Amino acid sequence: MRAVQVVGYHTDLKLSDVPEPKVEGPLDVIVRVGGAGVCRTDLHILEGQWAEKSGVALPYTIGHENAGWVEAVGDAVSNVKPGDKVILHPLITCGLCRACRFGDDVHCENSRFPGIDTDGGYAEYLRTTARSVVRIDDSLEPADVAALADAGLTAYHAVRKAAASLRPGDVCVMIGAGGLGHIGIQVLKALSAATLVVVDRNPAAVALAVSIGADHGIVADGTQVRQVLDLTGGAQAVIDFVGEGGATAEGVAMLRRAGNYYVVGYGENLDVPTIDIISTEINFVGNLVGSYTDLQELMVLAAQGKVTLHTSKYALADYQQAIDDLGRGLVRGRAILIP
Amino acid sequence: MRAVQVVGYHTDLKLSDVPEPKVEGPLDVIVRVGGAGVCRTDLHILEGQWAEKSGVALPYTIGHENAGWVEAVGDAVSNVKPGDKVILHPLITCGLCRACRFGDDVHCENSRFPGIDTDGGYAEYLRTTARSVVRIDDSLEPADVAALADAGLTAYHAVRKAAASLRPGDVCVMIGAGGLGHIGIQVLKALSAATLVVVDRNPAAVALAVSIGADHGIVADGTQVRQVLDLTGGAQAVIDFVGEGGATAEGVAMLRRAGNYYVVGYGENLDVPTIDIISTEINFVGNLVGSYTDLQELMVLAAQGKVTLHTSKYALADYQQAIDDLGRGLVRGRAILIP
Amino acid sequence: MRAVQVVGYHTDLKLSDVPEPKVEGPLDVIVRVGGAGVCRTDLHILEGQWAEKSGVALPYTIGHENAGWVEAVGDAVSNVKPGDKVILHPLITCGLCRACRFGDDVHCENSRFPGIDTDGGYAEYLRTTARSVVRIDDSLEPADVAALADAGLTAYHAVRKAAASLRPGDVCVMIGAGGLGHIGIQVLKALSAATLVVVDRNPAAVALAVSIGADHGIVADGTQVRQVLDLTGGAQAVIDFVGEGGATAEGVAMLRRAGNYYVVGYGENLDVPTIDIISTEINFVGNLVGSYTDLQELMVLAAQGKVTLHTSKYALADYQQAIDDLGRGLVRGRAILIP
Amino acid sequence: MRAVQVVGYHTDLKLSDVPEPKVEGPLDVIVRVGGAGVCRTDLHILEGQWAEKSGVALPYTIGHENAGWVEAVGDAVSNVKPGDKVILHPLITCGLCRACRFGDDVHCENSRFPGIDTDGGYAEYLRTTARSVVRIDDSLEPADVAALADAGLTAYHAVRKAAASLRPGDVCVMIGAGGLGHIGIQVLKALSAATLVVVDRNPAAVALAVSIGADHGIVADGTQVRQVLDLTGGAQAVIDFVGEGGATAEGVAMLRRAGNYYVVGYGENLDVPTIDIISTEINFVGNLVGSYTDLQELMVLAAQGKVTLHTSKYALADYQQAIDDLGRGLVRGRAILIP
Repeated sequence: MRAVQVVGYHTDLKLSDVPEPKVEGPLDVIVRVGGAGVCRTDLHILEGQWAEKSGVALPYTIGHENAGWVEAVGDAVSNVKPGDKVILHPLITCGLCRACRFGDDVHCENSRFPGIDTDGGYAEYLRTTARSVVRIDDSLEPADVAALADAGLTAYHAVRKAAASLRPGDVCVMIGAGGLGHIGIQVLKALSAATLVVVDRNPAAVALAVSIGADHGIVADGTQVRQVLDLTGGAQAVIDFVGEGGATAEGVAMLRRAGNYYVVGYGENLDVPTIDIISTEINFVGNLVGSYTDLQELMVLAAQGKVTLHTSKYALADYQQAIDDLGRGLVRGRAILIP
Repeated sequence: MRAVQVVGYHTDLKLSDVPEPKVEGPLDVIVRVGGAGVCRTDLHILEGQWAEKSGVALPYTIGHENAGWVEAVGDAVSNVKPGDKVILHPLITCGLCRACRFGDDVHCENSRFPGIDTDGGYAEYLRTTARSVVRIDDSLEPADVAALADAGLTAYHAVRKAAASLRPGDVCVMIGAGGLGHIGIQVLKALSAATLVVVDRNPAAVALAVSIGADHGIVADGTQVRQVLDLTGGAQAVIDFVGEGGATAEGVAMLRRAGNYYVVGYGENLDVPTIDIISTEINFVGNLVGSYTDLQELMVLAAQGKVTLHTSKYALADYQQAIDDLGRGLVRGRAILIP
Repeated sequence: MRAVQVVGYHTDLKLSDVPEPKVEGPLDVIVRVGGAGVCRTDLHILEGQWAEKSGVALPYTIGHENAGWVEAVGDAVSNVKPGDKVILHPLITCGLCRACRFGDDVHCENSRFPGIDTDGGYAEYLRTTARSVVRIDDSLEPADVAALADAGLTAYHAVRKAAASLRPGDVCVMIGAGGLGHIGIQVLKALSAATLVVVDRNPAAVALAVSIGADHGIVADGTQVRQVLDLTGGAQAVIDFVGEGGATAEGVAMLRRAGNYYVVGYGENLDVPTIDIISTEINFVGNLVGSYTDLQELMVLAAQGKVTLHTSKYALADYQQAIDDLGRGLVRGRAILIP
Repeated sequence: MRAVQVVGYHTDLKLSDVPEPKVEGPLDVIVRVGGAGVCRTDLHILEGQWAEKSGVALPYTIGHENAGWVEAVGDAVSNVKPGDKVILHPLITCGLCRACRFGDDVHCENSRFPGIDTDGGYAEYLRTTARSVVRIDDSLEPADVAALADAGLTAYHAVRKAAASLRPGDVCVMIGAGGLGHIGIQVLKALSAATLVVVDRNPAAVALAVSIGADHGIVADGTQVRQVLDLTGGAQAVIDFVGEGGATAEGVAMLRRAGNYYVVGYGENLDVPTIDIISTEINFVGNLVGSYTDLQELMVLAAQGKVTLHTSKYALADYQQAIDDLGRGLVRGRAILIP
């Protein structure tokens, strides 16, 4: 089959002919890829940023945001059957460690990460396991939802935590209305009656945010902290999809007493005087990608039409174009490879 | 009556004769002071550190950890009557703002703080309100529990939050086995079956910690992070009663994935890479003093003998000796003034 | 002033001239009534059903769903000022008992209930306290929201509890699409992404339910349990606004394993084999009227236009007409008296 | 190997020679049985009470409370290895359904129950899967903890739920100080600082309850409701290990407002007026056996010496004696068969 592989760092990806994956274990699931998201992390992989951390042996197939159709299943697979439309949780988890037993998949002690440390989805077929496949509604197409598998799942996970403690009248600020923020806005409006203020440097992104449900949009022009405080008196929750360029200091300044700060984007240090943390009794909440059940719930919202995603589709053979467009900021929405 | 007052900053306290406080409002409660804790904050007040923040007019009576007997009550007071033994919540709260309506007293939008911004308890009598008095068990003496009103209440508040998510087999590390840690250890053992590791630079404090319930004691000699990780594999919770001198960096290194860091002590900045926060999905929880209901619960533990406190008692007239002893580190347990 | 009073049981109400209430205590608030809901409970009061329980002395002014404008306030009132538009929490609470200190107003150990055991709102003015007045948005009129003070608050309280554990894709069944159900539907859709199925005997009520947000409507014709199970496989939550005529047995049969049953309506016994409770591990949750903070939040939803109410307005002097219409089932929406 | 089997209903068990179980699937675990609890459910199986519900084909090996040593494991088993001491969760679960993915094992949609619907542990060896084996501490012996696998796990599960909302000073009543209550008492004292009142008809059981940690013991002589109310003013939690003979009506009468009733024992109907449920806003919580993680935690408490169990041991060949002793009430503690 055709697969786009990492053959070296600081080197272009290569389209190769490789053997199709086969069912080897009783919980294995072979998925015919219907769409694979092209993510900024893929650029970082090519730059070698993940080489040491993942320890992956080259060449291998890249692509960690995948959806498609079940092609074949192992003997012990009871939750899907060939032909089912599925989206793939980004991790392959053991199901046996204590984290897995609590449903806390992302802290599995024995996980693998297709597209990062084992073969991923820039290919015609992909092997995963029954623990990673979520059936999607008939009304959804794999290529349309693939990018929800990782970016969307991360946004859902953070927003769901925030929504759990937001009451009507409470204010939630989201910093960053890009890929994750775009999903986050839709999820928050679906899950809560909180008042949502979106802050972004890009006026077009702010306008889009308001058009899809944000109650207020603020262009970050240096006065954003003042604007948020004047408008709201301070937020019960700040969800930071940026995490760099001074976002955290500004975000913390937007909180009210006893507020919660959700760290999603990353890059800079969170650097806050402990006296400020205790005197206002604020909290900081880390957020990684969501669990399997989070992905099930996000797919419900997608099937209900409450969460949608703009995508730009490319044939698998045009992978280089997709990568180049992403690198140059020319992709509208998320780029998706279609095998 | 006699009262010890702040008459200037960088100046000694002064014992004066001042009018007794009277019931002025229907919820007022006059308390005959049975014991007033001498706290490090009192030293900071004299150094002028609180002058601007509190805006208090001099002279005023100092002392914010108070317990005693109800002397008189206003018309609308239904929860205590003259003669009742009581401990005083450190704040006087409005009861009407949204924080108060949630029982979240410390975030009251209209609070006063006796001993800090209004007359406190280094005196024969003190005026507070019905919202700040907690009746204590017959078996307890005001002078023995007064220091639980602020330091103890802070420890209880933080530990109760931590205990709520600690399960049998989970590990809790406490950094600092001084005044707050001493209470914290007793509270954690009363509220949970978690395994408790206490870290302190002082071998005597570590030994005391183990004698009152810590499962493991570690002397902080530079190898404490390694020791904690070797012993436990990482903690689900770190409760940091120090917050300075590098404690936060060390404490964060002691956490396991998805762990919670409770900030109680303060001084330095919490300075953590956001990528570390999201990749391990850890949380930071701010902690201020506890609520009124927290103080009720702490008094239950005290009455049950589950939380005890060493005290060194001084007559009110010996206030200068108490202050001096505290400044020189000569007080065993907490210093208490007895009017 | 004019006031409609209970002068005897099994006797018509009487419009009398009575003294205006005055501020007597520092937390008192005098409200000029803008609207008073006429509730089925008022009929029950006249039938004497509450005589013994309330112990109220006749004559007294009836009416327990009230909203209006602040006319005067006591010295200690800091949360409202004359002229403010307010809705009244149905209880006057002490603020000092442990339930109050947790924000759990309805379990106050010293509460009074205007319209039931003290003078209520079928009058030009009403005395309550600062703890019972919630300011409403400028865009809202007292007469339009008065009926949310009790019936609406009860629905909000139960639905908020249910929403807290409902995830996207989960099914919530509401039994009864009358006054409370009507509010409940709107609240659930505002607070969650759960799938909502409404069951009622009245086809018109079912049609209305769907028009205001229910995902599915089922006419209770004897096959409703079967229909719910076929449609959903069983509900994670059943909110029962009926509680009589066999509703509870049918509702329990609609639950799936580990489901929650919210008892709101009442009349019959809940009668379930303990073996069914343990083998499916289901829960039953009692619901009384909401807290003060619940009412604040419901008023936010009203101001956002997410919860609206049909009302039929009557002049205060036409109280008998309103009572008669209600008794005969002729009121569309809720009847409101306008002084 | 030797196995004690059900060969017919209303017929004695029979000791047979049957083939040893073998690893068939990659997650299979063969356990050499170290102890198998003899439970009242085993008597009910022989009476045919489970015949229709389980659909099990005869003959099969009985015994559902098992512990021992791992003998062999399938290829995919990563959590245990041969020689490990283990206790067995009573269910074999799929790990793939939504309940399993939340860690809610007992609601697995595809579970099996060794000893009930497939071969159990009255035998030398037993086949289970990696998802059902919990390693136990070196200090524990399988025969000593086997009875915690089901009865103990049920008690732990219910008490842990109750403990999560019990604060210092809150009152918990346990009805029934038999097998489950005995464990429940120890668990509650390990997990909370609540005040524990134990009620039982048997004065010896009450005395034992007090000796292992209950704060108050009350002999149920007809005045128990009155005694509980006089002593406590009503309980925040009632944990009912009896569920028959009028226990539920009495237990509900012991609750205070907003209290929680935990149904564990079963037999009679829970029959409560809905008006009582809503006017006091009480809740009823169903409890089935605990999850895999609950069993891990209970084993931590056992290893810490916080939960201990009296056992009476019988050789496997003496199974009939054990069954007869249990039927006649002659077993002290729990009867355990030792192969």
